[in-house]
Amino acid sequence: MSLLLDSASQNLLFREARTANTFSDEPVTEGQIRAVYDLIKYGPTAFNQSPLRVVLVRTPEARERLLAHMAEGNKAKTAMAPLTAILATDYEFHEELPKLVPFAPDAKDIHFSERRVREEAAALNGALQAAYFLIGVRAAGLAAGPMTGYDTEGLRKEFLDDDHAPLMVVNIGRPGPNPWYPRLPRLPYDEVVTTA
Amino acid sequence: MSLLLDSASQNLLFREARTANTFSDEPVTEGQIRAVYDLIKYGPTAFNQSPLRVVLVRTPEARERLLAHMAEGNKAKTAMAPLTAILATDYEFHEELPKLVPFAPDAKDIHFSERRVREEAAALNGALQAAYFLIGVRAAGLAAGPMTGYDTEGLRKEFLDDDHAPLMVVNIGRPGPNPWYPRLPRLPYDEVVTTA
Repeated sequence: MSLLLDSASQNLLFREARTANTFSDEPVTEGQIRAVYDLIKYGPTAFNQSPLRVVLVRTPEARERLLAHMAEGNKAKTAMAPLTAILATDYEFHEELPKLVPFAPDAKDIHFSERRVREEAAALNGALQAAYFLIGVRAAGLAAGPMTGYDTEGLRKEFLDDDHAPLMVVNIGRPGPNPWYPRLPRLPYDEVVTTA
Repeated sequence: MSLLLDSASQNLLFREARTANTFSDEPVTEGQIRAVYDLIKYGPTAFNQSPLRVVLVRTPEARERLLAHMAEGNKAKTAMAPLTAILATDYEFHEELPKLVPFAPDAKDIHFSERRVREEAAALNGALQAAYFLIGVRAAGLAAGPMTGYDTEGLRKEFLDDDHAPLMVVNIGRPGPNPWYPRLPRLPYDEVVTTA
């Protein structure tokens, strides 16, 4: 055991945390999501780009609009979750850089004037922040159910715009009955890590 | 305070964790990296794809080969780190799926026969795992210094192959003298999270 993080926290965030497929009725409050964001906003992104944007789907009306774009296999659990978050990345993140990197007021124009450069940076750094968000949901003692099975263009048109790309949709709540599938295998260390 | 994760762990992983720019001489052991991987391998990926691959750069010879491809501003700190990890994603991850999703032995051919589909999935899911890796390094009580400033093609040719794309390079170690820049601002909740 070479980790400093205590076992209970390891279990909460990784070892016993599982992708939930059912949810209880217990609501997820805005206060909980604020607490998640106030933690995970500190996770590192390149040049502090911070391109993650989150759309919360809570009302029955908004949920119906979301379900229309989810893959068949994801509809039942998404209908059941008390809160669902659409995680997206902002291709116009550079507009916020004067606030985010005040020491480099020209970075927005010098490094990120090209849309293609921004799209590539936003895809990577938005995904990093999506992972931090999943960890943050678990840190709040809630189960997360991340999904990439949806009609991307439909979802974008319904909830976002051409400057925002969906990264994933995450059901959030307390687990309901029979919430997990059996844990799937992982690759052994020696098949993943090599030394140059 | 709506989080279940205790404050010390919040600080270790997010609030007080910082991107290190200098490192002490204290070595990072293989045991520590094994412990990091044995924790973060449980982080979720779509369909358990698990495309992250890690190349550790430890010897002076390997470090020289790495430095040749790093951006000028990243060379000094990369020369100083006791261990540097090249995080890459595997575009041929589908070859491992029979092991990773044993309930769907045909998934490899049904869903992932197209390289373009695999590249897109590997980019997103590899980035999620890269974020888990950064959290894991912090969980080990070590400082991480993630970087995307390098010659991508040069790095790929030197340490990887055409089936693996670099995601980031991460310096790992105990912080050295004056290791941090001042904490940069983050976007407020209401500019990031909206409700549909």
